[in-house]
Amino acid sequence: MGLGLMGGSLALALRGQCKTIIGHDAQPDVMQAALAQGVIDLAASFEEAHNSDVLVLATPVRAILAQLERLSTSYTPPRQTVVVDLGSTKSEIVRAMTNLPPRFEPVGGHPMTGKEVSGLTHASGDLYRDKVFVMCAPGYTSVRALGLVYELVQAIGATPFMLPPERHDALAALTSHLPYTVAVALMRTLMAEDDEQVWRMAAGGFRDTTRVAASDLTMMTDILMTNREQVLKALEAYRGQLEGLVGAIEAGDAEALKGALAPAQAKRAELFKE
Amino acid sequence: MGLGLMGGSLALALRGQCKTIIGHDAQPDVMQAALAQGVIDLAASFEEAHNSDVLVLATPVRAILAQLERLSTSYTPPRQTVVVDLGSTKSEIVRAMTNLPPRFEPVGGHPMTGKEVSGLTHASGDLYRDKVFVMCAPGYTSVRALGLVYELVQAIGATPFMLPPERHDALAALTSHLPYTVAVALMRTLMAEDDEQVWRMAAGGFRDTTRVAASDLTMMTDILMTNREQVLKALEAYRGQLEGLVGAIEAGDAEALKGALAPAQAKRAELFKE
Repeated sequence: MGLGLMGGSLALALRGQCKTIIGHDAQPDVMQAALAQGVIDLAASFEEAHNSDVLVLATPVRAILAQLERLSTSYTPPRQTVVVDLGSTKSEIVRAMTNLPPRFEPVGGHPMTGKEVSGLTHASGDLYRDKVFVMCAPGYTSVRALGLVYELVQAIGATPFMLPPERHDALAALTSHLPYTVAVALMRTLMAEDDEQVWRMAAGGFRDTTRVAASDLTMMTDILMTNREQVLKALEAYRGQLEGLVGAIEAGDAEALKGALAPAQAKRAELFKE
Repeated sequence: MGLGLMGGSLALALRGQCKTIIGHDAQPDVMQAALAQGVIDLAASFEEAHNSDVLVLATPVRAILAQLERLSTSYTPPRQTVVVDLGSTKSEIVRAMTNLPPRFEPVGGHPMTGKEVSGLTHASGDLYRDKVFVMCAPGYTSVRALGLVYELVQAIGATPFMLPPERHDALAALTSHLPYTVAVALMRTLMAEDDEQVWRMAAGGFRDTTRVAASDLTMMTDILMTNREQVLKALEAYRGQLEGLVGAIEAGDAEALKGALAPAQAKRAELFKE
């Protein structure tokens, strides 16, 4: 379900590794394009695709919640079916998964990858390669289901990383949702200047710092809405750090300021050797 | 003066376009390496290099201020010499330039380019290509001197952009010094968690948003110290935008939140088509 950047890339990464890839998208033209380009073998809704081993939900979080609601109330598959999603927040989704009828075996998923552009046209079979793929399962999910998702994750070249959903959301708030909010605030600050020369001066540093601000709006709104508590907690911590830096700049003590910047410089240089 | 990332790259970009490139660096081994690699033709201090047409100061801002002080008090060149710097803030530097003896013709310069790594080993002749090169001159600088710097800027493939120094500093605070401070605060927020799993979840978005936090410490300390007023003003505006987003997330109104994110998304997507 969903043949955008994430779902389309997953289908491409799985080519030749599955018997049949059946795809569906809310936009009929996207579904037709995926079929024409050989991204999927068949176009069908989940209800039409009986006997699937795995059902993948690859839409923004609130659309996943709506799909889980629909699966919980109006459909029973003919046999045991693993349901995995690619949504960016996990607590609400895994909670909703526990309402699925017993024939569904749910595993929450979140691949730590993406692009600031969206849609099938940007999909790539390499998107998941060497990336961390978080798996969050309700306690009752069978070892068979976990094993199947584990295999799928490895088949697309990603590294499985098991986490409780609440823990995932706390970490993702810090590593992903906070940087996004920060980037949007940065964009809004420059836009509020209403001064065209600002953009002429914007170079590589500004471009990189704000890249994620161009992310898909529905995806990001859903993320912030379904992970509000953790995002607000991360923002609170961040504002404390920012106040500390403002204070150090105000104080005008070069050595003290350098001392506040130094650990961040060292850690960033150590983390990503580019 | 200065054969790090910026000075070294300038020498490389000017190869074949100057009669002689004379270089100097406070670190003797860097100077020897530049000579051995053919980055410069000669190694000499400015006082030893009589009859230069242009003197380039390519060090962090506070070192440039110290050099200008030295040139103002203890040396008179044998003939008219253009002095241009590559410092990241311009008001203090251009003010200090006005104290130079009349034989010096000063032009403040700031190429809007860089890397999060520093030093001669990362220098590249392409660093300035297609980048904006801000020029800030005291009112009395001759047309000849401006013309010479203009030619130099074009010779390295950059685009000259004339601005008053105060205006440069206000714009650079927004487009460069604010993103840096934001990136450092982001790094410090995650570091304060003291949780190794945070780093495992950090993917491409986090990597890009924090890239500039790895910038050279002395360079960045000097920038923040010599542009305090404008940086604090930019931080004030940014904190206002951040509060607005925090409020929108707290309020929990998805449509209102999406409305706050949307303009930033549209502008960022329009600015940099990647």
